[in-house]
Amino acid sequence: MKQRILVVGGVAAGPSAASKAKRVNPNAEVLLFEQGEHISYGICEIPYYIGKVITNPDSLIAYTPQKLEQVKGVAVKTFHRAEEIVQSKKKLIVRNLSRNRIEEFSYSKLILATGSKARRLGISGEDAVNVFHVKSLEQGYALRKYIDERKPKSAVIIGGGYIGMEMAEALVGNGIKTTLLHRGDLPMSGLEEDTRKAIVAELESNGVKFIPRSVVRELTVDTSSRVSQVTATTGKFDCDLVVLSLGVEPNVELAQTARVRLGSNGGIITDQRQATSVDTIYAAGDCCEVKNIVNNKWMYIPLATIASRQAWVAGENAAGGSATFKGAIRSIAVKVFRLEVAQVGISAEEADASGFRVVTEHIVGNSKVGYFPGNAKVHIIAIADKKSKRLLGANVYGEQGAALRADVLGVAIQQKMTVDDIARLDLLYTPPFAPLWDPVLVMANQLTKKV
Amino acid sequence: MKQRILVVGGVAAGPSAASKAKRVNPNAEVLLFEQGEHISYGICEIPYYIGKVITNPDSLIAYTPQKLEQVKGVAVKTFHRAEEIVQSKKKLIVRNLSRNRIEEFSYSKLILATGSKARRLGISGEDAVNVFHVKSLEQGYALRKYIDERKPKSAVIIGGGYIGMEMAEALVGNGIKTTLLHRGDLPMSGLEEDTRKAIVAELESNGVKFIPRSVVRELTVDTSSRVSQVTATTGKFDCDLVVLSLGVEPNVELAQTARVRLGSNGGIITDQRQATSVDTIYAAGDCCEVKNIVNNKWMYIPLATIASRQAWVAGENAAGGSATFKGAIRSIAVKVFRLEVAQVGISAEEADASGFRVVTEHIVGNSKVGYFPGNAKVHIIAIADKKSKRLLGANVYGEQGAALRADVLGVAIQQKMTVDDIARLDLLYTPPFAPLWDPVLVMANQLTKKV
Repeated sequence: MKQRILVVGGVAAGPSAASKAKRVNPNAEVLLFEQGEHISYGICEIPYYIGKVITNPDSLIAYTPQKLEQVKGVAVKTFHRAEEIVQSKKKLIVRNLSRNRIEEFSYSKLILATGSKARRLGISGEDAVNVFHVKSLEQGYALRKYIDERKPKSAVIIGGGYIGMEMAEALVGNGIKTTLLHRGDLPMSGLEEDTRKAIVAELESNGVKFIPRSVVRELTVDTSSRVSQVTATTGKFDCDLVVLSLGVEPNVELAQTARVRLGSNGGIITDQRQATSVDTIYAAGDCCEVKNIVNNKWMYIPLATIASRQAWVAGENAAGGSATFKGAIRSIAVKVFRLEVAQVGISAEEADASGFRVVTEHIVGNSKVGYFPGNAKVHIIAIADKKSKRLLGANVYGEQGAALRADVLGVAIQQKMTVDDIARLDLLYTPPFAPLWDPVLVMANQLTKKV
Repeated sequence: MKQRILVVGGVAAGPSAASKAKRVNPNAEVLLFEQGEHISYGICEIPYYIGKVITNPDSLIAYTPQKLEQVKGVAVKTFHRAEEIVQSKKKLIVRNLSRNRIEEFSYSKLILATGSKARRLGISGEDAVNVFHVKSLEQGYALRKYIDERKPKSAVIIGGGYIGMEMAEALVGNGIKTTLLHRGDLPMSGLEEDTRKAIVAELESNGVKFIPRSVVRELTVDTSSRVSQVTATTGKFDCDLVVLSLGVEPNVELAQTARVRLGSNGGIITDQRQATSVDTIYAAGDCCEVKNIVNNKWMYIPLATIASRQAWVAGENAAGGSATFKGAIRSIAVKVFRLEVAQVGISAEEADASGFRVVTEHIVGNSKVGYFPGNAKVHIIAIADKKSKRLLGANVYGEQGAALRADVLGVAIQQKMTVDDIARLDLLYTPPFAPLWDPVLVMANQLTKKV
């Protein structure tokens, strides 16, 4: 009998896993289900489409359903929402949203790539026509259309995480007066305090009003069904537009119908083969937790880089192959106006909680030879373990050329290099690209004195 | 008795070694000898001063003799040329060039930082007033002055190495019609063929006439004692200015007076403590050979990064400390107009000669998300060993943001990572800085299929 592999979820991990499965076993029938209209698109690029940095909306889409079928041999069913797994019968219950009817599909293997869902405020007004999440291509298109047609003059962003930062830049780029309400003292929890303060300074110097310790109490909806005012613990804020960026959580409703094991962060737990606790069911992408290989703890960190690797592994194994994904260090970058920010590895707080003897160092280096035109300051905050002398994590921030230097530290973390090892690295030097003592070496030389 | 440490050579390694020695043993008397006027300057920055990218000539100097004395406690004697080591008496014979007299200095320890000297053509006309090496700050200042005052319209550069590339850009930046004569088929020997071809294309698209297979036969000197024509095997080239960039060789004349052991590349051989074969004599910088830690062979590679480390180690050990320098992978970058070029590790040819089973791969990746404004193509030519699967070397070239990616590969080479290890690296992704699959990962994924 022909093997049938079903994949649920069409944004990032799903199409990758499906394509890989078909490539590994060309005789298998591979079906992909997506509840929305579009598949295989770059969700990380949407803020740049809103900000008009990316002008062509079609460029966001890597594969249309037709193209995925033709090029990769994967059958795609859009507007199909998977609602239940009947594992005893190896059947997936799917709602055809176009025809509003239930359909059943049997499977040999099932791959869950159901992604994440945006957190909600849970108060009324949240679904008003001028309130947007930026969690799907449809929402991205809708927000861009709203801005172009209605030309809002002021906006309130609720939530100071990565998407909040990128959306602040995108809205300001559209000439919209932007206020950012954040629950905590500083944006971007998970980064070190100095980094977070630098981000606030960058937001403010670009005209964004950052209001810390703001808990939203009420969305006031006017007669045209639009939110015209946001009431928070810190005040009342008039606006023409609201963007919600409260973070995401793993979308595991479908997985729960098959009693797939979840972790303490709410995501699906898999083995290194991306197999779930339930036989014949694999999972990949933002619905999963991931093993942090620095402290060996499970974390929830929805990133396209991790999703892609998990997808390849899940796809290959579902098709009968043998591949593994051992985990990630966490490697994140974000642009906040002119500030480049990157994080690799674990934070000082995480390191402390994991039982390391934490030592930190904050250095300021040069991106080029100091007096060379275009030189930018590069900040590195490094986190090391005094006992093993290992580098555990780092924040890197600064202007042009800062963020990519974090990759060098990322490799060092992945390789469990000590601070002394890093101080001995043979790195590039030429006046227009890098100083004699690269910021990475300046950091390591300083840190060797402390560990 | 007070310890006296003598250091010969004031450009890069010398001042570093002297300062380090004084720091490690503040009671020692540390004397630095330099035959020229200036010390402690950035020789790598000179082409950018000629090209008027760096405008302030004083910025090239890190420490004046006075400042080095005041800040670091090192006594500096400029216009003093060390001529002979009398090791049996632990005496250094020095010519005071200002007074043209011989002086003798006894030493407890001696550090040789005599650097390199420019290769010469060995034909008449080479010392004409419009012929320049770019091998010292004095020569750099003189060339810049000549360009400003005489406004030459055309130049011939002889030699297609790193300095030849940088000087081509500097001269074109001054509006000078530039011809580059090179002995071989392609410039920049040591790099891979595709890289070298890309460099030729970049030179030519910026108006530099690159003439390969050119052996210079004659320099025609006119009545004003200037070279007006260069005759090579490939033709006669009229010019107002000649720049010689024939490469450098270790300056070991002084070392030879003490019978210090030299290597097959002509440089001083030291142990990991930067001690030479002669007791109490240390060496650092461009007069030394260096152990290539990729293939464990001695190489001659005059680089400021290596010189600095050797200088710290020599200085510390001469002062009674204990430090080691284990060698380098070779990590070089050069800017050729808009093209960024970097090399890390060994070349395919070197790998082959070292007995590795060589596999290479040339990939073209993106510096950002492909359709993001400002994306540039990044070329990686990777060299791996089929047996161990280790990455041995790489060339990286492309426009903005290309070169620094070589540092990630440099760390991988230093750590003896396999191609499979590299394919599993967790690298940054965010549309404005890096694509989902960084060029480093694209390369590794391709190469895993070959090793």
